Amino acid sequence: MTQAGPVLVPKGFKFSSAKAGIKSSGKPDLALILAEPKTSAAALFTKNLVIAAPVEVGRTSLTRSHGRIRAVIVNSGNANCATGRPGIRDCKRVCAEGASLLNLKPPEVFPSSTGIIGVPLPVEKITAQLRSLISSAGTSLKYLQQFSEAILTTDSKPKLASVPLRSGRGVITGVAKGAGMIHPQLATMLVYLLTDVAAEAAELRSALRKACDDSFNLISIDGDTSTNDTVLLLASGASGVSYKSVRKEFDRALLEVCRSLAEQIVADGEGVQHVIRLRIDQAKNRVEALQIARAISHSLLVKTAWAGADPNWGRILAVIGRSGVPVNPEKIKIHIGDQMVCRGAVACTFDQNAAHEELSKPECRVSVQLGTGKASIEFLTTDLSAEYVRVNAEYST
Amino acid sequence: MTQAGPVLVPKGFKFSSAKAGIKSSGKPDLALILAEPKTSAAALFTKNLVIAAPVEVGRTSLTRSHGRIRAVIVNSGNANCATGRPGIRDCKRVCAEGASLLNLKPPEVFPSSTGIIGVPLPVEKITAQLRSLISSAGTSLKYLQQFSEAILTTDSKPKLASVPLRSGRGVITGVAKGAGMIHPQLATMLVYLLTDVAAEAAELRSALRKACDDSFNLISIDGDTSTNDTVLLLASGASGVSYKSVRKEFDRALLEVCRSLAEQIVADGEGVQHVIRLRIDQAKNRVEALQIARAISHSLLVKTAWAGADPNWGRILAVIGRSGVPVNPEKIKIHIGDQMVCRGAVACTFDQNAAHEELSKPECRVSVQLGTGKASIEFLTTDLSAEYVRVNAEYST
Repeated sequence: MTQAGPVLVPKGFKFSSAKAGIKSSGKPDLALILAEPKTSAAALFTKNLVIAAPVEVGRTSLTRSHGRIRAVIVNSGNANCATGRPGIRDCKRVCAEGASLLNLKPPEVFPSSTGIIGVPLPVEKITAQLRSLISSAGTSLKYLQQFSEAILTTDSKPKLASVPLRSGRGVITGVAKGAGMIHPQLATMLVYLLTDVAAEAAELRSALRKACDDSFNLISIDGDTSTNDTVLLLASGASGVSYKSVRKEFDRALLEVCRSLAEQIVADGEGVQHVIRLRIDQAKNRVEALQIARAISHSLLVKTAWAGADPNWGRILAVIGRSGVPVNPEKIKIHIGDQMVCRGAVACTFDQNAAHEELSKPECRVSVQLGTGKASIEFLTTDLSAEYVRVNAEYST
Repeated sequence: MTQAGPVLVPKGFKFSSAKAGIKSSGKPDLALILAEPKTSAAALFTKNLVIAAPVEVGRTSLTRSHGRIRAVIVNSGNANCATGRPGIRDCKRVCAEGASLLNLKPPEVFPSSTGIIGVPLPVEKITAQLRSLISSAGTSLKYLQQFSEAILTTDSKPKLASVPLRSGRGVITGVAKGAGMIHPQLATMLVYLLTDVAAEAAELRSALRKACDDSFNLISIDGDTSTNDTVLLLASGASGVSYKSVRKEFDRALLEVCRSLAEQIVADGEGVQHVIRLRIDQAKNRVEALQIARAISHSLLVKTAWAGADPNWGRILAVIGRSGVPVNPEKIKIHIGDQMVCRGAVACTFDQNAAHEELSKPECRVSVQLGTGKASIEFLTTDLSAEYVRVNAEYST
């Protein structure tokens, strides 16, 4: 696991949360980030063709505001997706009312929603809370933690990570929600990355894309891609340090924050018993390595074998064979932990108990050597437990 | 469900089965079909790049014998896959010893194996039984039924279907094994289709491909494709009726047999509670319709909702959006049973209880109208139950 240090609050941001009554549990379900003037923003969104209203509105707002975002309003408990034109109107109304109270333009208020699909957004419940949400915002860690809790749905715990730049040069802090429906190319995943470094929107876009490719796009819980996925990066500039002056360090820190959040999301997937650190080595290129990693990590037969900590390499080999990547089975090796279990598509003699023990760990290692090139990736995925089925069969529309 | 009539035994074939001790359960695990001289054959095999020894040997034998197969030796309990050159040698040895006892050439003996991957074939156990397997073969229904039982693995029951041609003109009978790992483009599925009509191998190949496209290639249990899938069609010619003279009727009957077996395979999938008859209508073409049907039927979130008989159309809509097919969400409609539940990517007002009841049936109907063209397909798939996870997590390598 990537080890992020204590959570730090970047300068230039305030946070708050509220109970708007969207969640039937009565838990906090509305959250706010306020950012100082001059804050720059960049975002990545779901690639699903069915997109939620806040994704459509948020994308447009980023363009209209020229990457200037001053407030983020997040609700949990309702995705405002498959809600048609009324959904768009509701989303815009929340942003407009927030903007009016904050004396901003509507596109400077960025919306996010997560929760059930196809149910109209309870917009009155949200707008009724906006005034107190804004007035109660604070800058301390406690406020950030409350924000991180209010955005959760079926997550079991909040997800935070901070990486400071060298002394006095700023910090990058990320807050995320995940759980279920997590897939490369983003997922029901809301991620807010905050930094006090000063940057142009274009600089942020480029840095964000690189960091996401090597973190959130290398994880998968169930292969489903949500309609609401959003990763938003805000740079307040309050540290007075420019991105250009710390570029390499910033990019590295951003990747580290994203990786930590990605790992926290996978480990907290619905019904997850084991996180599998799946390496694909000796691939012809990154695309083929990813295609194989995804095929393995979406295979029900492989995932259920992992649930039983069963070193069933035959199922992995069979998935590689049907992955669509031109492979030569005779060159393939499969390792569980440090043990080679299959070589040239034939069983190796190996210690079954040791392999079972490796797969019984909360985090275990499986690797595949394809023997066709030099590309490698490391992908994070999970087992498929009966608990996952229970959670997702009982979730009621 | 397709209704096939009583099982008939086509003329020109004998069957037998034996307990070779491959299965630890002690159940029958070796089975034989003997076919009269002049029998023609055609086969389709798995598209997995990792293929089992019997698939490699069987494919070559079909070529070498010019589509003349006189015997089929099937073992269950061991897939003879990922067994390298020794696996090929073992498979050839079984065929050669069978051929020697039957006074045939080795390529006239067609091999099949199903069961665990990566374990050497217990070849001595098999060859020790060949003489009695051959001598005990018989032509009556009882022998065919025993054959159908000996090829099973985790199936709960044998799978048979017969469709007679018009009075006296012959019959087509199919025997299959399935259960788990079932996927379009074949699966751990062994299918033997037998007819007493007289046909050339080329005629059989063309008829078989068409029938499979509209049956076995339209089903999916878990999206995994096996390394051993084989569909073999044998035509003994014992009825004296030529394929040319009954072509249309034969093709229709073959499709009906294949559809019945495909339905039996899906309904007997591991842990299956509900069979879902999934229609995709108004697609631009068949390829796009299939792509969407497969994406829906492989989605863990959709399959678990089905396990709970939950009319969660939002998950179906989200999968359509990420399927890779260019769709316009505003044109999409989704039906559960006869009720429209989503129109233009927005919820319809519908009777939740009636939708829940439809999805609670052993066989239920879900349909999607894409609004982009005129192509339709009907796909058979299943829910994903905690029982599936249990079966596949506990299966021990």
